[in-house]
Amino acid sequence: MDVTLPVGLTRNDDGITRACEALQTRFGERLSRGQSLREQHGHTMTWLKNQPPDAVVFVQSTQDVADIVAICAEHRCPIIPFGIGSSLEGQLNAPIGGVSIDFSQMNQILKVHAEDLDVVLQPGVIRTQLNEHLRDTGLFFPIDPGAEASLGGMAATRASGTNAVRYGTMRENVISLEVVMPDGRIIRTASRAKKSSSGYDLTRLMVGSEGTLGVITELTIRLHGIPEAVAGAICPFPTVEAACNAVIMTIQYGIPVARIELLDALQVKACNLYSKLDLVEEPMLLLEFHGSEASVKEQSELFGEIASDCGGGEFKWTTDPDERAKLWKARHDAYWSASGLRPGTQIFSTDSCVPISRLAECVEETRLDIEETGLIAPIVGHVGDGNFHVGVLVDDNDPDEIERAEAFAGRQSERAIRMGGTCTGEHGIGQGKMAYMRKEHGDAVDYMRAIKQAIDPQNIMNPGKIIPA
Amino acid sequence: MDVTLPVGLTRNDDGITRACEALQTRFGERLSRGQSLREQHGHTMTWLKNQPPDAVVFVQSTQDVADIVAICAEHRCPIIPFGIGSSLEGQLNAPIGGVSIDFSQMNQILKVHAEDLDVVLQPGVIRTQLNEHLRDTGLFFPIDPGAEASLGGMAATRASGTNAVRYGTMRENVISLEVVMPDGRIIRTASRAKKSSSGYDLTRLMVGSEGTLGVITELTIRLHGIPEAVAGAICPFPTVEAACNAVIMTIQYGIPVARIELLDALQVKACNLYSKLDLVEEPMLLLEFHGSEASVKEQSELFGEIASDCGGGEFKWTTDPDERAKLWKARHDAYWSASGLRPGTQIFSTDSCVPISRLAECVEETRLDIEETGLIAPIVGHVGDGNFHVGVLVDDNDPDEIERAEAFAGRQSERAIRMGGTCTGEHGIGQGKMAYMRKEHGDAVDYMRAIKQAIDPQNIMNPGKIIPA
Repeated sequence: MDVTLPVGLTRNDDGITRACEALQTRFGERLSRGQSLREQHGHTMTWLKNQPPDAVVFVQSTQDVADIVAICAEHRCPIIPFGIGSSLEGQLNAPIGGVSIDFSQMNQILKVHAEDLDVVLQPGVIRTQLNEHLRDTGLFFPIDPGAEASLGGMAATRASGTNAVRYGTMRENVISLEVVMPDGRIIRTASRAKKSSSGYDLTRLMVGSEGTLGVITELTIRLHGIPEAVAGAICPFPTVEAACNAVIMTIQYGIPVARIELLDALQVKACNLYSKLDLVEEPMLLLEFHGSEASVKEQSELFGEIASDCGGGEFKWTTDPDERAKLWKARHDAYWSASGLRPGTQIFSTDSCVPISRLAECVEETRLDIEETGLIAPIVGHVGDGNFHVGVLVDDNDPDEIERAEAFAGRQSERAIRMGGTCTGEHGIGQGKMAYMRKEHGDAVDYMRAIKQAIDPQNIMNPGKIIPA
Repeated sequence: MDVTLPVGLTRNDDGITRACEALQTRFGERLSRGQSLREQHGHTMTWLKNQPPDAVVFVQSTQDVADIVAICAEHRCPIIPFGIGSSLEGQLNAPIGGVSIDFSQMNQILKVHAEDLDVVLQPGVIRTQLNEHLRDTGLFFPIDPGAEASLGGMAATRASGTNAVRYGTMRENVISLEVVMPDGRIIRTASRAKKSSSGYDLTRLMVGSEGTLGVITELTIRLHGIPEAVAGAICPFPTVEAACNAVIMTIQYGIPVARIELLDALQVKACNLYSKLDLVEEPMLLLEFHGSEASVKEQSELFGEIASDCGGGEFKWTTDPDERAKLWKARHDAYWSASGLRPGTQIFSTDSCVPISRLAECVEETRLDIEETGLIAPIVGHVGDGNFHVGVLVDDNDPDEIERAEAFAGRQSERAIRMGGTCTGEHGIGQGKMAYMRKEHGDAVDYMRAIKQAIDPQNIMNPGKIIPA
């Protein structure tokens, strides 16, 4: 099944041509129609087909974006916002053509409000750039999706990552957005107040809407104090279930764990091979604790007791930065070590998220499915949130294998939904998961569509994403 | 200005009559048209005029609600969901008549998922009832808006209260909702997964929508572990600014304070009179720390140092429950002690919320305004969030005084908006704050209206609230 073929959408050739002409006049050399650049601005990260936009415009201001939207609205030309290109579900593809808005030149950090623990910035800011900028303030932005993602893209896909268990996702950490709406008007979704009961929560509506309701042109996001001390820890478990039980007890006990990551035995084996480690090849939990010196010691020791009660093996923890990096090496190298299991293949990632009480069962069923399918696919999980990824190693040139992997990914989505969870914990819907929207949301999809039609009646904002036909 | 007179809305007499007849047939004695019951189901909490519904139906199931909505949709009859009646901005009024849905008989706690730290319950559950039910599980629901509120109402108004600074508001603590939509269909807004990137965030759209987009019939909300230890603390400060500086430093330092409340000098005086205390009549911070024994000791001592650095007076803290209750007595009795300042009057509360960097300035400006206006109005604030309430003591029988109080409340809304905040941190818009929606949100109001029209094209869901004409 080619999920990237839009149902009920048609390309508006004339409108796109006229819009591109008008944009050329307005933006000159900041508009590019070169093929390789266009292809780079389509989807490139998984087996989803690359569908390049017709043109790429490099924007430098909110007004630039408003002008693009006004021109595109006039000519009914699709618009696809582009941060850095790290999305995984085809969010950047242009199935019926259109214009990609590239935010790489809108990457200014506008204002750090240290007293309010927030920062105002442009969508093209990369999260590592932000933390570099903040270094002397004693503050940091914790959300770490693993990739070098742009903050605009992270908001648009409701991204999260390893320390969402403590600090939340983009849902909890976006305070306010400036958005260019489909009619070209510029709005602010909320004030900078930490909380509000004033009207509909447009901020949360925009977060996760993947560019289908408007174009984010400025973000105000929450910052957190850099913890005085950080402890890293690692512990093997005889089974995934034992590891999950330890996670459940840790969270029930109220230990404010900052990261709690699961590697399955295959992933640990891959890490041993790639990173020259000698870890026991059993399911493994890696943890990070943030707080005062006394607090991280207390947290680590408490977790050690829980791990022992749950049948865990040798528990190691440290606050020494070098030692900590060594303990966490397996996790940091997980992606590359997984690739190393089968050189020449690509990793395609699933993204199930289930209630934590179902996590062990879900991972075990997944493991059996992988074995039956004959795929090679290690598992890494942000298990404090019930979220885990299967990294399916696929030979791009083998259509049969791609088909088997796609079928597996589909079962994986359905499994998560059946267990009371979601087909996507943090990657978003894009094109890749649209087929599961109805299964996951039932009739609620109709109200999402109603909202989309009300706000973007011409369907020019990233058409062919999220909402199934 | 009578804000309860709806602009552009007209009463549909025939439709309401026909709907009530059909409902009478369907619900029999569970429908009531008695005047005093109807008046109790309109707004009763502030100077906003009571506008009773035409009938009250006591529901017992989601299907009851779906049937009501189907009947009312057929006859274009307004629907106003009613929890327990504690809202403050006229959310329960029926300006063009209609049917109040009373949830007091839908108050079952359906399922506690202790491993997942969530609970599924009906909208009529009262928060104290929930915590009573949870007592033996080691879990609790922290959000405490002060009133005996229903969970359905708290979700509908995006409520919070004293410990939002640590545990968040209803925005962060609602996982999923079952909602009867304006066309009578029943949807679930999300799965039980802790996080998700799947489609538009209908949960957050419903939270805070005050019954204008649908009727909440079931909630899944987050629970938290009861902390091993709780410390209470109190400290006077020479000025509000000094107290606010201590709050800012506390939060910047990352002390995970559970509550941090400000009383101004007048409120402290009121507490001394009412509760027979001998507190210094200066601005006062009251705090609560949650954690392990060691952690709450560390937090309390750290705060003590910060308070001292900021010019605070005598700092007291304790983990002993009786002593803690004594320290916090001033806060617990704040409402009644404020009334005691001027017996025979009612308290009408404002609800400003500003970035914490502007809090001291906002409180000081407010204090000057109160003095100029000649009102008696102590201040209590959830200052960790930048949220504070002015409790204006108003003689209900003095129209001139009501007018001055209303004018003051209006300036208070505008002041918060001007300082980058919101006119309502936790009470909602209802009828009382509609006039400030455009000032606070600008053109964003138009997209809220577009969403409202898309989802509720007949405008039968709590019409005349939130969205100005």
